[in-house]
Amino acid sequence: MKNLYQDTIVAPATTPGTGAISIVRLSGPDCFWIVDAVVQLTRGTVSDADAYTIHFGKVYVIPSGAEGEASVSPALLDEVLVSVFRAPHSYTGEDAVEISTHASSYIVQELIGLLLKAGARFAEPGEFTRRAFLNGKMDLAQAEAVADVISSSTAAAHRVAMNQLKGGFSKELARLRSELLEMASLLELELDFSEEDVEFVDREKLLGLLDTTRAHVDRLAASFHQGNMIKNGVPVAIVGAANAGKSTLLNALVGEERAIVTDIPGTTRDTIEEVINLEGVLFRFIDTAGIRESQDAVENLGIERSFRKLSEAEVVLGMLDVTSDSEDLAVQLALLGQHWNGRFQKLILLLNKSDLMEDPIYNKNVSVINKFVSSFDYKVDILNISAKKGQGLDALKQRLLALEKDIIPNQDSTFVTNVRHYDALRQASSALLDCRTSLSRGIPSDLVAEDLRRALASINEILGTDLLDPEVILHSIFRNHCIGK
Amino acid sequence: MKNLYQDTIVAPATTPGTGAISIVRLSGPDCFWIVDAVVQLTRGTVSDADAYTIHFGKVYVIPSGAEGEASVSPALLDEVLVSVFRAPHSYTGEDAVEISTHASSYIVQELIGLLLKAGARFAEPGEFTRRAFLNGKMDLAQAEAVADVISSSTAAAHRVAMNQLKGGFSKELARLRSELLEMASLLELELDFSEEDVEFVDREKLLGLLDTTRAHVDRLAASFHQGNMIKNGVPVAIVGAANAGKSTLLNALVGEERAIVTDIPGTTRDTIEEVINLEGVLFRFIDTAGIRESQDAVENLGIERSFRKLSEAEVVLGMLDVTSDSEDLAVQLALLGQHWNGRFQKLILLLNKSDLMEDPIYNKNVSVINKFVSSFDYKVDILNISAKKGQGLDALKQRLLALEKDIIPNQDSTFVTNVRHYDALRQASSALLDCRTSLSRGIPSDLVAEDLRRALASINEILGTDLLDPEVILHSIFRNHCIGK
Repeated sequence: MKNLYQDTIVAPATTPGTGAISIVRLSGPDCFWIVDAVVQLTRGTVSDADAYTIHFGKVYVIPSGAEGEASVSPALLDEVLVSVFRAPHSYTGEDAVEISTHASSYIVQELIGLLLKAGARFAEPGEFTRRAFLNGKMDLAQAEAVADVISSSTAAAHRVAMNQLKGGFSKELARLRSELLEMASLLELELDFSEEDVEFVDREKLLGLLDTTRAHVDRLAASFHQGNMIKNGVPVAIVGAANAGKSTLLNALVGEERAIVTDIPGTTRDTIEEVINLEGVLFRFIDTAGIRESQDAVENLGIERSFRKLSEAEVVLGMLDVTSDSEDLAVQLALLGQHWNGRFQKLILLLNKSDLMEDPIYNKNVSVINKFVSSFDYKVDILNISAKKGQGLDALKQRLLALEKDIIPNQDSTFVTNVRHYDALRQASSALLDCRTSLSRGIPSDLVAEDLRRALASINEILGTDLLDPEVILHSIFRNHCIGK
Repeated sequence: MKNLYQDTIVAPATTPGTGAISIVRLSGPDCFWIVDAVVQLTRGTVSDADAYTIHFGKVYVIPSGAEGEASVSPALLDEVLVSVFRAPHSYTGEDAVEISTHASSYIVQELIGLLLKAGARFAEPGEFTRRAFLNGKMDLAQAEAVADVISSSTAAAHRVAMNQLKGGFSKELARLRSELLEMASLLELELDFSEEDVEFVDREKLLGLLDTTRAHVDRLAASFHQGNMIKNGVPVAIVGAANAGKSTLLNALVGEERAIVTDIPGTTRDTIEEVINLEGVLFRFIDTAGIRESQDAVENLGIERSFRKLSEAEVVLGMLDVTSDSEDLAVQLALLGQHWNGRFQKLILLLNKSDLMEDPIYNKNVSVINKFVSSFDYKVDILNISAKKGQGLDALKQRLLALEKDIIPNQDSTFVTNVRHYDALRQASSALLDCRTSLSRGIPSDLVAEDLRRALASINEILGTDLLDPEVILHSIFRNHCIGK
């Protein structure tokens, strides 16, 4: 694919104002001239400089408001280091320059102003990576991984993103592509001789190939569920009565870990989500509204929502206040039992306030809980905790980490983490299914070939080859990248 | 001065997690070996690389938790660019390396972990700049300017900091130093021949030299007041009755400019300070508690504090509600008149709510205001505004910018912006005054020379030559720098 742009772009590549160094980067055919117009090197010029060399230089500015006054001498803006990259051996594949300045937002702003005046254009979000894609330095799936690599906060998320960036995912797609192309060429051979009305291809063999390929596509599409968990956290719903200590538990987990905690935007008042990094694994804790049996229509709506959230979780933490009345406890357990899906969801019963438990209530409650647990075929974990005092949290953490290994067993394989890729894979799968139906019904080869081409187009869409509407697709992909990437 | 450290330091030089690129920097004798142990260059090694060259390389990590397992293969952490600097041609004057990675906090954290394992030490705040000072790349006043350059948010603050970084201030100090040394050598010549009891030096000439030098020292010390305003903003007090619209004005100014607004820590509840960048000039607006005549002792304490704040300001904005009763207005003006220092402070009367004014009250109030203004010898500005509707704010802004040019007339000269430098200059001045007193009283030359040496020591303290207690002074200077600088 030909480079669509012939202009030179500039943007800050670091957040200025913090740290010690700021980087301003340029890419495009005129970047050497532009930098030479703005930076006075101690020796020589950027235009004459070798690739992969660093040069000391000075940047001067006319004080603002004094432009055009002959008597005003330029002031030193900064002393900088200029790094030179020559096409095609740069990130973008174009001539490129990185200017390293003191980490001041004022300096970066003025320097970029000078570079814009000298002929550069301010880069759009993700435009450096977009150019890298357009210049053939990486395919689209790799380009999309750049943002994921930057935002990865755990080893697992980093590994998945880096695998995609280095082409691991692309290689799997390339294999799919060659399988589809092989089938297509078999069918096209038939089409060439279609007037002779001869079936060249062994239909059984073709059906076999088709099933293998579709299984491969489906396996990749299915990995999205797990890839999403690696990237955004394993969803853990905390469910229980309003006063059972759900929020206290959440705060205790956050506090213990001193981890990065994000309020996920768009959550309703009824459910609060927090992403917590427990020993390098992300968990997305969903704190739901208190559940109870109610006649109130409005309250029941909220409780309904809690149960819907519960159904999205991989792990359910059933929060029980063991100091409460045994009958109340039984009602809580019954509600939980109605909504917990033992086949797909792990359940951990947390016996909270266990430090405050008095013997007589304890024995009664334990028998209620045991009765509940024994009524299921699926394993239920039981942990004594005190969310308030932080007791039992370590055991809970270890249990969650062990469950995560069950939920995502092969962390070294390829995972789909991008909705766009997931959608494309599902379309490919559906086209292959159509293809199979047509084949088994003896529909003419040209129609079967059409289905195959649809599947191929979906795979190409992921890699960015032969995009149907490149501007629209590229815009929607790169607009969420940061400036300077 | 000899380099005190022989170890190699490492730190992030950018804020990871934002932007496109992160930089990890190392400095010290072992940095090439350490980087070679962690980064696999495509060609050659860092140890063999030329100065000022850039090299592509890969960093691998053993997945955490899997250390020691023979079967586990290392995973790619990142592809990086390595920039090589060789002593003495680097920021620190030592061998140095900058590693450019994807801007991920996870990658930076893991990479630094690998470099620490390979023998580097995590740098203390400001340690790179401290080493630059200890290796003679810059004097102490220049090293201190690095943090100022980074934090400068306006052209004027940047110019002052950059002038100091590039040695403009140091040059002035060097001139002072040579003047003091010349005087000292004249006196010491006398001491050598002191037994012959002859006065070699023309005392009048020495007194003249002394006065010139002290005037120079005092001029620099006096520039601290203005330098401080350039760096932290021109203080503008907003004074008036509680309901006159002071906070509304402040919010309108902030909103209009969409500027960086900082809550200055340590301010009391009674006064709120906001620093606003108006067309490249910083103003520090001080919103004081409402003033009025009161019998209440506690309230009077608050009002007293407002007036104290008023006395620290360069500009006083007298906020008047022109819809209020004329007698109330007269009381307000009388209070303002009692505390405003016309000799040192500019006063602008802001007739607020001027859009709501009714004719009869207006005429009466205007005559009250005119009477107030005519009772002073100093010029009082009057502006009609509506803080709520944003009317008249542009005129106020232009007036403030014009006043700032009066308050800081020669913005191109050298300004002292550092309290440490200011204190040292005051000590030098005081030592020179002692020196003058001794000289004019005919006190023996050796005592006079002692005073001179004290003045010289104060100047040397600023430049960092012959520090009395280097560890203590350097620690206190660099501990406030950021990591990686």
